[in-house]
Amino acid sequence: MDAAAKARFDLIGENLAEILNPELLESILAEGRNPRVYWGTATTSSPHTGYFLPALKIAQLLAAGCDVVVLLADIHGFLDNLKAPLDLVENRAKYYSKIITAILESVGVQTDKLEFVLGSSYQKNADYVMDLYRLSSLVSEHDAKKAGAEVVKQSNNSPLSGLMYPLLQCLDEEYLKCDAQLGGVDQRKLFVAATEWLPKIGYRKRAHLINPMIAGLNGGKMSSSVQDSKIDLLDTPEAITKKIRKAEAAPRVIEENGVLSMVEYILLPAAGLKGRKEFRVERKDEEPLIYTDIKQLHEDYKNDILTPQVLKPAVAAALVELMAPIRAAYEGSAEWQEITLKAYPPPEKKQKKVKDKGSRYPGAQNQ
Amino acid sequence: MDAAAKARFDLIGENLAEILNPELLESILAEGRNPRVYWGTATTSSPHTGYFLPALKIAQLLAAGCDVVVLLADIHGFLDNLKAPLDLVENRAKYYSKIITAILESVGVQTDKLEFVLGSSYQKNADYVMDLYRLSSLVSEHDAKKAGAEVVKQSNNSPLSGLMYPLLQCLDEEYLKCDAQLGGVDQRKLFVAATEWLPKIGYRKRAHLINPMIAGLNGGKMSSSVQDSKIDLLDTPEAITKKIRKAEAAPRVIEENGVLSMVEYILLPAAGLKGRKEFRVERKDEEPLIYTDIKQLHEDYKNDILTPQVLKPAVAAALVELMAPIRAAYEGSAEWQEITLKAYPPPEKKQKKVKDKGSRYPGAQNQ
Repeated sequence: MDAAAKARFDLIGENLAEILNPELLESILAEGRNPRVYWGTATTSSPHTGYFLPALKIAQLLAAGCDVVVLLADIHGFLDNLKAPLDLVENRAKYYSKIITAILESVGVQTDKLEFVLGSSYQKNADYVMDLYRLSSLVSEHDAKKAGAEVVKQSNNSPLSGLMYPLLQCLDEEYLKCDAQLGGVDQRKLFVAATEWLPKIGYRKRAHLINPMIAGLNGGKMSSSVQDSKIDLLDTPEAITKKIRKAEAAPRVIEENGVLSMVEYILLPAAGLKGRKEFRVERKDEEPLIYTDIKQLHEDYKNDILTPQVLKPAVAAALVELMAPIRAAYEGSAEWQEITLKAYPPPEKKQKKVKDKGSRYPGAQNQ
Repeated sequence: MDAAAKARFDLIGENLAEILNPELLESILAEGRNPRVYWGTATTSSPHTGYFLPALKIAQLLAAGCDVVVLLADIHGFLDNLKAPLDLVENRAKYYSKIITAILESVGVQTDKLEFVLGSSYQKNADYVMDLYRLSSLVSEHDAKKAGAEVVKQSNNSPLSGLMYPLLQCLDEEYLKCDAQLGGVDQRKLFVAATEWLPKIGYRKRAHLINPMIAGLNGGKMSSSVQDSKIDLLDTPEAITKKIRKAEAAPRVIEENGVLSMVEYILLPAAGLKGRKEFRVERKDEEPLIYTDIKQLHEDYKNDILTPQVLKPAVAAALVELMAPIRAAYEGSAEWQEITLKAYPPPEKKQKKVKDKGSRYPGAQNQ
């Protein structure tokens, strides 16, 4: 690889927990071609700040000259929410494409090389299905279960679809013609399985870009169903500020610290994409702390130079600033507002809240 | 039901081990309509005399005014024989339709109400697949496994397709628009599951016609892979006679007696369809024994009035006579002979024999 290719590869790999089969990407870059990467999300719930993690990675991929496909897995969304009718899920898919585009635009990334694909546009096609049948006759129940262990809820009484999901996700790599798939650490076993399974039916194996897990604001995993663990992408500045103020962030402890994660995985990369990778912490009667790198920030936090009391307002202010264009885009689009009403209709009395069960897709990592 | 409907119902039920939800058929008959029944067979191997059992039942169904669909499950044939290319399986499907038609014609049944359908003609369609996805999200792994327990080889390392098979077979009932499905006793759990599963996705449950298991000539289960346990439908008169002569048939023992099974499930029903339900046993220097009913024959056999020595030549002669038109049809059809060569190409050196693994389909009961 020449220096330009190396720089592209470094940006592709920034902040990732791991790359499986990086040589597949390196050779594409060495030839001066653009890798095509896919990231999938089941359109089951409402994207929150956790989506900044894959979205900013997608922004970096686009900045590194990759072609990126976002799979809006509507069939899976429908299957995950057995009582949600298909048109609800389809409106959610539209909502997802709106908000993901808004995130990317909020950090100034060109989205002309970004493609949204609906799962239902090809996952019911004859070729795909025949490949599903073929693959199902070659992959054992044991291996399917192992591959999906951290992605799909599993027990003897779990629906059979949970065992089929890993096969579908593996086939998606071929049918989306990608060179690599992006997903969270929880997808690792599935990604390893995909590299073994695709060649069994005559297709090439893909590289895999693995995002780290990001902690929720309450210290645990970020979850759509735990309101206090996440910030909605359309939250008001007041709501954002309040949630950050209430977030768990023990002094000196950097592990499972959701507020620090925000800086590392959202605010610093977003600032980088906007042209100046730094994070400022204003202090009363003192010089501001300015970080260009998470290591120094972690160091200061461990030594209580950077305290939760000064960190939180800085994070809240940076998030409010980062998310302002998203909210503005929403408020300026009657179409988007209409989609939102259809995708998330206000609950009628006695109507059950649509549950957000864990989904197979990488987006699930942040839910 | 009036007397005519009752007579139709009795012929539909003759020799069956069981009918599940008979009221579904009774009401159709009471209205004077024609029930539509489906029987499926994976086109994996070479049909043998065991196929007389479902074929004669199909003949009775046609005689009782049913519409009958034979599903030639080519996709399943392909999946069961991972190394068999699809064109081989397609030629086998053609062979199956030839020989099943020949069996029916050999007993003088009109086949204009018989329909052959290739699995691949609809099992890759979008509606079918979406229903497969829907059903897979509603049926647990446990229930799928239970339903397929006696049909599909199962272990933790078995392919996932084995768990999908019961769902496909259940959907076939809807997509073949049938009122009832015919299959062997080994299908019972799957049939019970189908009556529970179809209503879950908004379809009606079907009746199920359950054939008994027929013993092989060596006393065990009739199997395609055990040459001495079965007679091929195109065997010569000499081969038929020799196999019957060598068959296990202990004097006085009627249990697991393949030779007696031939009389009960093939020769007597075939004679009935041809117009005169009787089985003659010629004896040296004595009057022939003439049976119109299996009970009297069993009685005589238990008392050694009917000995294996006189029974066997009578069975061989009756089989040779029954199968003569099938062989004649084969020998008179250059097209069929050509199909046979393509479906069962003579083994090249070092070529592995295509294995006949147990299949999900009722035909498997006799393999």
